[in-house]
Amino acid sequence: MTMTNVILPGSTIGVFGSGQLGRMLALAARAMGYRIHTFSPDRDSPTGQVADREISAPYADLDAVRAFVRTVDVVTFEFENVAANVAEIAQASGVPVRPGGWVLHTAQNRRREKEFLAQAGLPVTPFAAVDSLEALRSAVARLGCPAVLKTAAFGYDGKGQVRLHGPDDAPEAWAALGGQPAILETFVPFVCEISVVAARGVDGAFAHFGAIENIHRHHILDLSIAPARVSPAVAARAVELARAVMEKLDVIGVLCVEFFVTKDEVTGDERLLINELAPRPHNSGHLTIDAMMTSQFEQQLRAVCGLPLGDTTQLRPAVMANLLGDLWADGEPNWPAALACGAVKLHLYGKAEARPGRKMGHLTALGETVEEARRTAEAARRALAA
Amino acid sequence: MTMTNVILPGSTIGVFGSGQLGRMLALAARAMGYRIHTFSPDRDSPTGQVADREISAPYADLDAVRAFVRTVDVVTFEFENVAANVAEIAQASGVPVRPGGWVLHTAQNRRREKEFLAQAGLPVTPFAAVDSLEALRSAVARLGCPAVLKTAAFGYDGKGQVRLHGPDDAPEAWAALGGQPAILETFVPFVCEISVVAARGVDGAFAHFGAIENIHRHHILDLSIAPARVSPAVAARAVELARAVMEKLDVIGVLCVEFFVTKDEVTGDERLLINELAPRPHNSGHLTIDAMMTSQFEQQLRAVCGLPLGDTTQLRPAVMANLLGDLWADGEPNWPAALACGAVKLHLYGKAEARPGRKMGHLTALGETVEEARRTAEAARRALAA
Repeated sequence: MTMTNVILPGSTIGVFGSGQLGRMLALAARAMGYRIHTFSPDRDSPTGQVADREISAPYADLDAVRAFVRTVDVVTFEFENVAANVAEIAQASGVPVRPGGWVLHTAQNRRREKEFLAQAGLPVTPFAAVDSLEALRSAVARLGCPAVLKTAAFGYDGKGQVRLHGPDDAPEAWAALGGQPAILETFVPFVCEISVVAARGVDGAFAHFGAIENIHRHHILDLSIAPARVSPAVAARAVELARAVMEKLDVIGVLCVEFFVTKDEVTGDERLLINELAPRPHNSGHLTIDAMMTSQFEQQLRAVCGLPLGDTTQLRPAVMANLLGDLWADGEPNWPAALACGAVKLHLYGKAEARPGRKMGHLTALGETVEEARRTAEAARRALAA
Repeated sequence: MTMTNVILPGSTIGVFGSGQLGRMLALAARAMGYRIHTFSPDRDSPTGQVADREISAPYADLDAVRAFVRTVDVVTFEFENVAANVAEIAQASGVPVRPGGWVLHTAQNRRREKEFLAQAGLPVTPFAAVDSLEALRSAVARLGCPAVLKTAAFGYDGKGQVRLHGPDDAPEAWAALGGQPAILETFVPFVCEISVVAARGVDGAFAHFGAIENIHRHHILDLSIAPARVSPAVAARAVELARAVMEKLDVIGVLCVEFFVTKDEVTGDERLLINELAPRPHNSGHLTIDAMMTSQFEQQLRAVCGLPLGDTTQLRPAVMANLLGDLWADGEPNWPAALACGAVKLHLYGKAEARPGRKMGHLTALGETVEEARRTAEAARRALAA
């Protein structure tokens, strides 16, 4: 690690995107004496509210991008759906871009991501690229059903996905995605879903937060549980796969790998399949803020600034529960009731409008065991509706 | 607790003062979805950098104070040296002021503070009010030497204090303080210094972080160690005294009580004497951010917003080391070296100018024991100078 790679406290972090991930990065950065500028089309955004400067312009406004980059010492991203030329512009200005544009380019497209993983020899669900109804029919014939057709381009929280129960569903599914480039994936019956949030430094150092278990509801993350209730062997294997992904992609920053844990009905062997990558902090890592020595956001800061990665010891078993806009259906949630539930930490993102399904905040409960933490988290969330 | 007393997330906290205590309060408030406005004579202040709005005006500009108060939902303070009429103005505007003006009035004057404590039957060092050289001479004759003459008005970090070794020092000491109203205190040979940082809610609920041990250097806090290395009985007694102070003063918010622990040379009995009060988060409580389930700043936020107080379980033994401006004498400290020291958390306050003795930041080390944490904290601070 050369000193020229180090972005010292007092410097300015430029972040593209302005959601809650940028907000929590900003708070970690402020605590360590950094400044934060954010760029996105939005105003009074979750990140902008806590940033030194909020630039509101379309990502396609390349002059605005150039002007923004001149005001910062390092560029990072809080979501991967930024046009790759934004990264190129920053790079061309001589400002370090971490992770690099190739990482965004790969992760912002499901097809490129799957092809990268498969070519790297990493375990993924069987899939096929689909560019036409004919290609979809032949992919269904080859992979079987049930299967899931997903747009190749960015989607999240279950958006841009259609389930196929049999070959006859093909025309409707193809039409539902509007004929966009897509991939078909075999539907995998999994035992559980886990993720590994990890970081890689400028010097190649690697650090991780272990395996975190994720429970989804209506395709949106509902609960994360750390440590995950999987065998030590499965957790260790997941961490090694995350390390392999970060090394092969040459990521500087934080990356989350989401896995399906499957179980062979005959042998009982557990197997890991990579479902998705996110080259940034991830919703499932929010519990690191309260439960780990270093949060995923401080880790992102350290990694992109070329600082040594932080200690990732877990201080207490923890469960994170997302707070969606649905909780506001009958008015303001009962915050005092939830905060009276003991070892509960509340995080709210400053979003003005509470739409159903919108991530408004989360809470993390700590406990002596994950079971205790889960009881506390669920009691606190129930109390919000009381 | 009536709901009208509750200031909910999304509301705006108004803080008088703009130093690091306000900064860390602001970061805790942002995490929970609050807005922060700060009022002080300064610009680009530690608090202002992370606030939604920074008002720069003298505290004596009462029109500016009135305008400020109209923009916030609750008023609090990050230091106690604000003219009491500021609290009155806020109160008169119908905005809750927590803690109340009487708390500031008491704590901003050493003489009033001592008299309050003595009248409440709480243990303080023997003292005498001093308004003239004659009064000083007779106080010295009565209390004996060594003794310390302190200005009645606000002072901190050893400012406004003169040591008297014998009666002959009286004229020089009186002159050194410029003839201001003062108090003479017996110099207490103590075994160690401890503090209790505690919170009291709108409903009278009380929560504390246990006894924290403090080591000063040149009258400035150097290290804080939690838990303090005192007997459980002494720690419990300190907590009960802190509770008594908060109840008798009717404090809503966070308050720190600093104690001397003395030991009777003959009987070996340990005794506690209250040295000083601070009606706000305190430097010795900074380690709560990283070592406790709830930080002193989140606790302040919860208390002044009328929310239930947070769980104060300590997650790991911890040692906090202050980072003074002196560390910048030979240029920028070596941040990467310090951050490579393991379980170390760095906090910097965004102050531009590093003057000797100025508190620029702190670091907190966690460990399995306080000894391990102390070794880590001291190694990290040494590394800064390398």
